[in-house]
Amino acid sequence: MRALRLYPPPGREVSAIYEDLDLPPAGRYAGGPYVVLNMVSSVDGRTAMEGKAAGLGSPTDRRAMRTLRSKADAVMIGAGTLRAESLSLGLDPSEGLPQPLAIIVTNTGDVPLEEHLIVPEGQEVLILLSEAARKSVVDRLGKLARVVRMPADSSGAVDLEEALRDLKSERGVESIVVEGGPGLNHALISRYLVDELFLTVAPEVLGGTADRTLTLLKGPELTIRPTLELLSIYAAESELFLRYSLVCTTSNST
Amino acid sequence: MRALRLYPPPGREVSAIYEDLDLPPAGRYAGGPYVVLNMVSSVDGRTAMEGKAAGLGSPTDRRAMRTLRSKADAVMIGAGTLRAESLSLGLDPSEGLPQPLAIIVTNTGDVPLEEHLIVPEGQEVLILLSEAARKSVVDRLGKLARVVRMPADSSGAVDLEEALRDLKSERGVESIVVEGGPGLNHALISRYLVDELFLTVAPEVLGGTADRTLTLLKGPELTIRPTLELLSIYAAESELFLRYSLVCTTSNST
Repeated sequence: MRALRLYPPPGREVSAIYEDLDLPPAGRYAGGPYVVLNMVSSVDGRTAMEGKAAGLGSPTDRRAMRTLRSKADAVMIGAGTLRAESLSLGLDPSEGLPQPLAIIVTNTGDVPLEEHLIVPEGQEVLILLSEAARKSVVDRLGKLARVVRMPADSSGAVDLEEALRDLKSERGVESIVVEGGPGLNHALISRYLVDELFLTVAPEVLGGTADRTLTLLKGPELTIRPTLELLSIYAAESELFLRYSLVCTTSNST
Repeated sequence: MRALRLYPPPGREVSAIYEDLDLPPAGRYAGGPYVVLNMVSSVDGRTAMEGKAAGLGSPTDRRAMRTLRSKADAVMIGAGTLRAESLSLGLDPSEGLPQPLAIIVTNTGDVPLEEHLIVPEGQEVLILLSEAARKSVVDRLGKLARVVRMPADSSGAVDLEEALRDLKSERGVESIVVEGGPGLNHALISRYLVDELFLTVAPEVLGGTADRTLTLLKGPELTIRPTLELLSIYAAESELFLRYSLVCTTSNST
């Protein structure tokens, strides 16, 4: 794999993407960990088809994803992403690194843990379950993983500010990589809880009607748009690895 | 404006983006012109909100857009884009350059030319109207611009292969910049009629539900996905200017 670091200049060849990354221990949200989103999208902005990652992302992207995970204390996804396909939130055991905490956020408890979550040896799994979910759900999930009830916001969804604060203060989580889905991404960004966005742009165009495809964010138009500051660009073949910092301003776009 | 050319390396500062561009005189489609798409999207893949460009794109992007137009014989849009907002398909007259031919593709003839098309002095306007459109439409539009009836495909839409061949053979158009909308983009890409994609990635995330936002392509999942080859990257502040070549392969994604 030949990867180029292009930005900031000067460009140079590197042996791996994000290998020298060092996430800070505190995020923009007071009392919360440093939160980064990591997603892969096509050039036409699709992150998934029929809920699945649609074969986007090369082996280089998957390696960069594992590198990012290895830099964080925890990897978080929304339950919808797990319902859509089987996946692991861990590292390749052969690398011999400590496994990040796997966190799944769920409002209802509908989480197919046994069917879809691949848990490497040594990885702990934490379910953040909304207090609005039924009690019987706790009994079922509690047999499979540690379940923490979280205060619900007005819609019954997990209160993400509370959840992040709890993860840091109670569990020592100082950095989190969030890997979607678009609903969780939107909830976090619209609450100004995201510090950085890592976006891999796969050299493909997919098309697909809106009811069958997903984009990076699922939810209403952001009333206050964060400004993105480009931090770095890597390229491997025609695949791009973009890293942005999110800067929230109070200026509203009209 | 400080712009950086980042790819291919070595990176260097440039005074303008795409100024040294030279489009070839023949496209991938036999007998057709060289066709490039030029679009601006947010990092989350939105190209428009409520049909309008949503304030995406900086002055640097608008300058790059005009540079691209100056390199082509014609600038083409779909009628829906013109219905959504007022726009010009020409160059700033102060630059003293010959104006590209403005081409609007319409299946029905519903084109608000007088209300929405800003035509700089010296620019010719051509309406490509489907043969499926009613005759009365021709009379109305013919008073405002040159109207050419085009064979319709099975859905009543303009036959784009025929249209491109006609533009080259009858009107000497050797290169076209297509500026959307997503329906026209999809129709062209799914018929393998696009040679290159120029995409500006504005450093913003927008969100927005699918019924209110547009992405680069509007239409069903592409059955044969073109592979994109990265040709160049420029950056100005945190805005990215990506240029891809489209390579159509016969391998189907499953």
